[in-house]
Amino acid sequence: MPLGEFDLIARYFSRSTSRRDVLLGVGDDAALLEVPHDRALVAATDTLVEGRHFLPDAPARSIGHQALAVNLSDIAAMGAEPAWALLSLALPAIDEAWLEGFADGLYSLAERHGVALVGGDTVRGARVITITALGLVERGQALRRDGARPGDVLFVSGWPGEAAAGLEMLRHGEVVTAEHPLVSRYNYAEPRIALGRALRGNATAAMDVSDGLLGDLGKLCAASGVGASVDLERLPVSVSLRRDYPRSDCERFVLGGGDDYELLFTLPEANADALETKLSAACVVHRIGRIEAQAGVRCMRAGQVVVVTAPGYDHFD
Amino acid sequence: MPLGEFDLIARYFSRSTSRRDVLLGVGDDAALLEVPHDRALVAATDTLVEGRHFLPDAPARSIGHQALAVNLSDIAAMGAEPAWALLSLALPAIDEAWLEGFADGLYSLAERHGVALVGGDTVRGARVITITALGLVERGQALRRDGARPGDVLFVSGWPGEAAAGLEMLRHGEVVTAEHPLVSRYNYAEPRIALGRALRGNATAAMDVSDGLLGDLGKLCAASGVGASVDLERLPVSVSLRRDYPRSDCERFVLGGGDDYELLFTLPEANADALETKLSAACVVHRIGRIEAQAGVRCMRAGQVVVVTAPGYDHFD
Repeated sequence: MPLGEFDLIARYFSRSTSRRDVLLGVGDDAALLEVPHDRALVAATDTLVEGRHFLPDAPARSIGHQALAVNLSDIAAMGAEPAWALLSLALPAIDEAWLEGFADGLYSLAERHGVALVGGDTVRGARVITITALGLVERGQALRRDGARPGDVLFVSGWPGEAAAGLEMLRHGEVVTAEHPLVSRYNYAEPRIALGRALRGNATAAMDVSDGLLGDLGKLCAASGVGASVDLERLPVSVSLRRDYPRSDCERFVLGGGDDYELLFTLPEANADALETKLSAACVVHRIGRIEAQAGVRCMRAGQVVVVTAPGYDHFD
Repeated sequence: MPLGEFDLIARYFSRSTSRRDVLLGVGDDAALLEVPHDRALVAATDTLVEGRHFLPDAPARSIGHQALAVNLSDIAAMGAEPAWALLSLALPAIDEAWLEGFADGLYSLAERHGVALVGGDTVRGARVITITALGLVERGQALRRDGARPGDVLFVSGWPGEAAAGLEMLRHGEVVTAEHPLVSRYNYAEPRIALGRALRGNATAAMDVSDGLLGDLGKLCAASGVGASVDLERLPVSVSLRRDYPRSDCERFVLGGGDDYELLFTLPEANADALETKLSAACVVHRIGRIEAQAGVRCMRAGQVVVVTAPGYDHFD
């Protein structure tokens, strides 16, 4: 039987892997994988839709990166090591240059983190990409959202808000090159795998920032049955962000932006200083507030509660 | 933060599970699952696109069933037990009646096979549904496509072709009720989990029929480095199919149809009779041909090779 064109594109996603726990990869009815007896399996799935999660003219390489990165970020938020991924790719037509770029973006990130693509499905349709990422974490050590306790110190990793600013530049048609640091950050933000691993056994709660720091903090607090205060003066604002935007915009991006794959996490107060130093080996982390017994998230400036309307990050709405 | 409407629909997919190996289900960054130490993990992903894999006016309940069934069929083809699933649902708008029907179809099948829905993503977009199914199989016992040997006897389960006939009736706008056996078979075909389990340690090769018996047999032969002959006079043609279609159409459906979730498998000749009897406890199976050393698939009628042009099942093309 001749290969259909959609079988053909599957060839872009059949690169071999050196992972010895892949007993059977792409090509049978299903993949066959080996989970070590002392590990729990971690599974996450995320979907990108053209026009909502990526711009129609976005570089294919960036879309391939993002489709995997958003999933690896969920694996990172559990403190797990990513291991395997399955790809579903709906495309309106075959565009070999696009497929090559997409596959390169995806594999480049996958190889950096030792992830094997072990299965998938390619179909004709509106451009919709779903990846399921599978990871492994030592039993009993997964990071969860529901362990934050009053008194815990609240941290965020890296420089949230850069990706949202980069996306805004692209959406407003500003003349920026792909090398602009904010645009590059939007296109190729790195999931915080090493930090997630370092947080195991240390953080009381963790999650990745995908819908905006404030909104996601609200979810973490709700899951943990606590509240939080955020010190706006301690928000990390990157040099790139400060250079291009006034302070009010910077805060809006930091509090409401997604797509940076930063981690939001809580540390017990007693260990916070020591852990902060230790975690810095994995990536820069910023102390931005505190967990409190009173429900809800309060933003503070100069010791006063201020009302901040940073909408949850809802992509292109 | 108020729940977005797409958070809201996630509520349709948060039914609790009695599976004790789900350490953490829907609601955190990722699911946390326990794999027994003597099991390998089996993973498959399949996507349904409106207008290609289901008709725009298909019953939501049937779409929910099919989206999971096509994946469970892949798990069955590996001889594995399905355990968990993750759902990605892209929808153009919220339609609560549709969501209820879809969720009922999905959960009804999931509960019948003890499958827990442990994660997912809901986004706005063209109607595209991706499910990743995860299953468990005793280490070293998974069924594969590549073990068929010359002399093995070729079998297919059940009544392939019924679903394709049901779909043709629907597409041609024939006045049929959802209770018509061929339409009902298309809408609610059952993956052959019990048969797949019974084939472990017995079949030399197995796969599910999703692109048509002839086309899929070609894939099985290619993976095994063998060929096959199919005896057209032994093709199983169900009573429902015979009642509504002439013999030539029946053969076309049986050889080219997908969506029945039947299994194609090979048994060693020495055990074939005894195994056939034993397997019949799981479901009816039909001996339809033989594996041969010569590459390619040959269709035989009255001892002669005949040319059959049963196109691979390409859904709505």
